[in-house]
Amino acid sequence: MEKQKQTAILLAHCPDKQGILAAMTNFINVNKGNIVYLDQHVDYEQNTFFTRIEWDLTDFIIPKEKIIDYFHTLFGMTYEMDFNIYFSDVKPRMAIFVSKMSHCLFDILSRYTAGELNVEIPMIVSNHPDLKWVGDRFGIPFHVFPITKENKAEQEAAEMELLKGENVDFIVLARYMQIISEDMIREYPNKIINIHHSFLPAFVGAKPYHAAYERGVKIIGATSHYVTTELDAGPIIEQDVVRVTHKDTVKSFIHKGRDLEQIVLSRAVEKHIDRKVLAYKNKTVVFA
Amino acid sequence: MEKQKQTAILLAHCPDKQGILAAMTNFINVNKGNIVYLDQHVDYEQNTFFTRIEWDLTDFIIPKEKIIDYFHTLFGMTYEMDFNIYFSDVKPRMAIFVSKMSHCLFDILSRYTAGELNVEIPMIVSNHPDLKWVGDRFGIPFHVFPITKENKAEQEAAEMELLKGENVDFIVLARYMQIISEDMIREYPNKIINIHHSFLPAFVGAKPYHAAYERGVKIIGATSHYVTTELDAGPIIEQDVVRVTHKDTVKSFIHKGRDLEQIVLSRAVEKHIDRKVLAYKNKTVVFA
Amino acid sequence: MEKQKQTAILLAHCPDKQGILAAMTNFINVNKGNIVYLDQHVDYEQNTFFTRIEWDLTDFIIPKEKIIDYFHTLFGMTYEMDFNIYFSDVKPRMAIFVSKMSHCLFDILSRYTAGELNVEIPMIVSNHPDLKWVGDRFGIPFHVFPITKENKAEQEAAEMELLKGENVDFIVLARYMQIISEDMIREYPNKIINIHHSFLPAFVGAKPYHAAYERGVKIIGATSHYVTTELDAGPIIEQDVVRVTHKDTVKSFIHKGRDLEQIVLSRAVEKHIDRKVLAYKNKTVVFA
Amino acid sequence: MEKQKQTAILLAHCPDKQGILAAMTNFINVNKGNIVYLDQHVDYEQNTFFTRIEWDLTDFIIPKEKIIDYFHTLFGMTYEMDFNIYFSDVKPRMAIFVSKMSHCLFDILSRYTAGELNVEIPMIVSNHPDLKWVGDRFGIPFHVFPITKENKAEQEAAEMELLKGENVDFIVLARYMQIISEDMIREYPNKIINIHHSFLPAFVGAKPYHAAYERGVKIIGATSHYVTTELDAGPIIEQDVVRVTHKDTVKSFIHKGRDLEQIVLSRAVEKHIDRKVLAYKNKTVVFA
Repeated sequence: MEKQKQTAILLAHCPDKQGILAAMTNFINVNKGNIVYLDQHVDYEQNTFFTRIEWDLTDFIIPKEKIIDYFHTLFGMTYEMDFNIYFSDVKPRMAIFVSKMSHCLFDILSRYTAGELNVEIPMIVSNHPDLKWVGDRFGIPFHVFPITKENKAEQEAAEMELLKGENVDFIVLARYMQIISEDMIREYPNKIINIHHSFLPAFVGAKPYHAAYERGVKIIGATSHYVTTELDAGPIIEQDVVRVTHKDTVKSFIHKGRDLEQIVLSRAVEKHIDRKVLAYKNKTVVFA
Repeated sequence: MEKQKQTAILLAHCPDKQGILAAMTNFINVNKGNIVYLDQHVDYEQNTFFTRIEWDLTDFIIPKEKIIDYFHTLFGMTYEMDFNIYFSDVKPRMAIFVSKMSHCLFDILSRYTAGELNVEIPMIVSNHPDLKWVGDRFGIPFHVFPITKENKAEQEAAEMELLKGENVDFIVLARYMQIISEDMIREYPNKIINIHHSFLPAFVGAKPYHAAYERGVKIIGATSHYVTTELDAGPIIEQDVVRVTHKDTVKSFIHKGRDLEQIVLSRAVEKHIDRKVLAYKNKTVVFA
Repeated sequence: MEKQKQTAILLAHCPDKQGILAAMTNFINVNKGNIVYLDQHVDYEQNTFFTRIEWDLTDFIIPKEKIIDYFHTLFGMTYEMDFNIYFSDVKPRMAIFVSKMSHCLFDILSRYTAGELNVEIPMIVSNHPDLKWVGDRFGIPFHVFPITKENKAEQEAAEMELLKGENVDFIVLARYMQIISEDMIREYPNKIINIHHSFLPAFVGAKPYHAAYERGVKIIGATSHYVTTELDAGPIIEQDVVRVTHKDTVKSFIHKGRDLEQIVLSRAVEKHIDRKVLAYKNKTVVFA
Repeated sequence: MEKQKQTAILLAHCPDKQGILAAMTNFINVNKGNIVYLDQHVDYEQNTFFTRIEWDLTDFIIPKEKIIDYFHTLFGMTYEMDFNIYFSDVKPRMAIFVSKMSHCLFDILSRYTAGELNVEIPMIVSNHPDLKWVGDRFGIPFHVFPITKENKAEQEAAEMELLKGENVDFIVLARYMQIISEDMIREYPNKIINIHHSFLPAFVGAKPYHAAYERGVKIIGATSHYVTTELDAGPIIEQDVVRVTHKDTVKSFIHKGRDLEQIVLSRAVEKHIDRKVLAYKNKTVVFA
């Protein structure tokens, strides 16, 4: 494989003003940064400007460790810009939370193993030991935290300690089947990705396939979203659907949905890893 | 165009028992009816059998006017079968209700004019005169019944009189934008087809595109369904969806949705005209 | 409807160099043009930069009639940039060519009538009189040029004279069913939009639905493209597909394809009207 | 999991005659077979009847080992019917052929491991050792047959011996990247399932993503089909597509296509395992 050039990635949003984009691209250009990706979006209703810019650092004049400072001074303050800068040589660290179903976990690990995800996976966490063998097969530490009503708070506290100890950046709920408590959600704002097996906002909550079957829909869906304290109501990252007919049953809904769930979750995870998702006011900008 | 053979179409459902299908196909066969279409479905959960059978009447021994009697005696009573028999030479009569938007109306009339819909359209009904010119262009009588809170009951009564006078079999609400009262709905059970501009059951009620935009969905939809007394909750006939992104606005949702609405409605209308929809317990069996 | 602000639209491409986008957005900004749309694309393989920029002319300092000159001097020459500038108050003029099938024509006229297409339609042209009534209904002049092998060259010459007399900017072949000769194609480079009823490059040429049926495909498609002198091989603007099964026949392929054709053609026509398509090396950049 | 009832599955086709379906369902019914699945299709153009019938053997009077005889006598001979009868307790045996890419292999094994495929997988075969570790992880014997121009015939002969020794019923080419020789294809008629990474018949042969990129398509696809002696021209089982834009590159085509390939292949494999695919005259009937 060709050697990847080291790049910096800017994800930013701010009130829209004339000249922002020009100012930033100029700044990068004059400092000999070669822009390899640029996308921008203006929400005219919210008067908000969003951008993702990625540039090659090979000849960039400003030292890597000072880039954030420069952007803070030049743009953050001038334009009231919220921004993050990531470097392509720093892989984000992802924890996968699972319960008993393996398909989403397998799909992620299959991509990871094939070198398609620029991420590190220091752990799989579960409330059941059922999928420990998968962690073993792929050589990823598997931690079991059995959760009951009584011990939920302390188990989550233990989980968070583990996550911090391993410098986990974000969490993927790969059909985890447990509601995450508010404390944990607040610790990882827009950093917990869930897959819900319905076309949200239809069929919030438990047993969405049963509810969809009951309603007689002709299409079922799956939705990946960031977890917020309101159940199944966080910013949507990706959705997809598949057609069903009167011949389908709850069982075949589950079966067809399985493919949807894993593909919708994996697409969202990949976009997140690639720093292409910007959550804003309970929506997402997902750059192409 | 080739001369169409005259056919009979049976739409039926009953408790599932061994031998029903064999009994009916045997009966048609021994009486020299040539089956040109047969589809069946068993809902094992409800233990209910559904079928649509169409056969050529050219050599059928039983006289046309006695066919319903025979089916009533042989199958209706024996198998507790609910059924309807239609004849291909009797076109159903359809009224189209519109308000101010023309796209669904145009799409239906375009198909009708091209000879694609085996239907008669004796009237267009509206609460506004805005689309009268469309009726004029296509030579279809256009009746205006301005509706206010105060006169709704009497206007609907007048509409129903008109519908009956013209032997209207079913009604298509082509973006009618008015809630039909319960009296009228009861008069046309599973015979009023609505198009709702969302992926039901998400975004029931008014302004679904605004609600979808607010929620930040990545896919929008449209749903055609039979109207029941519960708003947007009747048996779904057809749904379809289209992808949206953060670049879309409410305006572009409406624009993209326009195509969805007309295609989803036209598909449902065509299935209904072709006697391929069987409503049952707030769901539909839609034969291929 | 709100009064639309007058805007200028730049469609441009050139060899990619650092600073192009910054230079242009700067230029517009300092001259008090408010950018309301900006999208750009870099083809790193071809090292080519593409952009579409639209800005409000209300406070723009440079007089409208000099804008093209300025861009020519500042960017066209400096960056070897190929560009066009359009003004939102100048509607393009579109001719529709049809044969005997009405569905694509109706779909375009339905949108046109509803005010959704920012275009003028001075004429419908056909080799058959069959659809004259549609022109009559919509009040659009309908010109019949019966074409035979013998008279093709002179009939097309007469058509081109008519097109020029009416200042037609581009042509839509709405199932025209005739091959346009090279002379005419060269007169309208990337300005003749065709709809082909297959998923190109599969099933080039005549009777694609028959060929698709014969091959046993499980999905059929439609493709809109600019016409070039090689049959069905021009730059693709839009494609879409629909699922078929073993139950489908050539007849039902045609029926399902009808919806595809009109929607795929209308999407392409709308993108073209909105100056969002940039043809380049037998491909298109289609801005969102 | 509930205990599955043992069932018999009939897959059959024959010239269409009145009364076939009635005769067969009668026969099953009077012998106390409870039909749990019935689908049928008539190709009126070919005058051919197709059916899949599955019935519960619990109370079936005819002994399992005589069922085929009975069907042969009663229907095979009378109706010139080609048929196969399968029993749900006999799992088909599947070999997976791979080369260096793992995604399709992982997807199948993920489903297999989750108990979703009613199949046995006695071996993985490859011309490279690269994916041996996957076989090892999942505990499936992995056989390497390095293939060169010179040794192809003998290596395939060795493969076929191995396949026969293990009673392999059918072969899945999970991105095998080798052309199977005619001898081997003839040994497994309609029993070798391939995944081709294009929307066939577009882009037959090598490097379809490159060809699709070159052509500027707006949608790419994948096709699973039975292998015949004509390259990429066998009966199509399943196809699906995904949208691409001018922003995509050959690399992103490959990336997007990866998901398509595995899902389209897995759907085809599952239909085949469930005895729902009937190949006929280079097409397939795929029962729902």
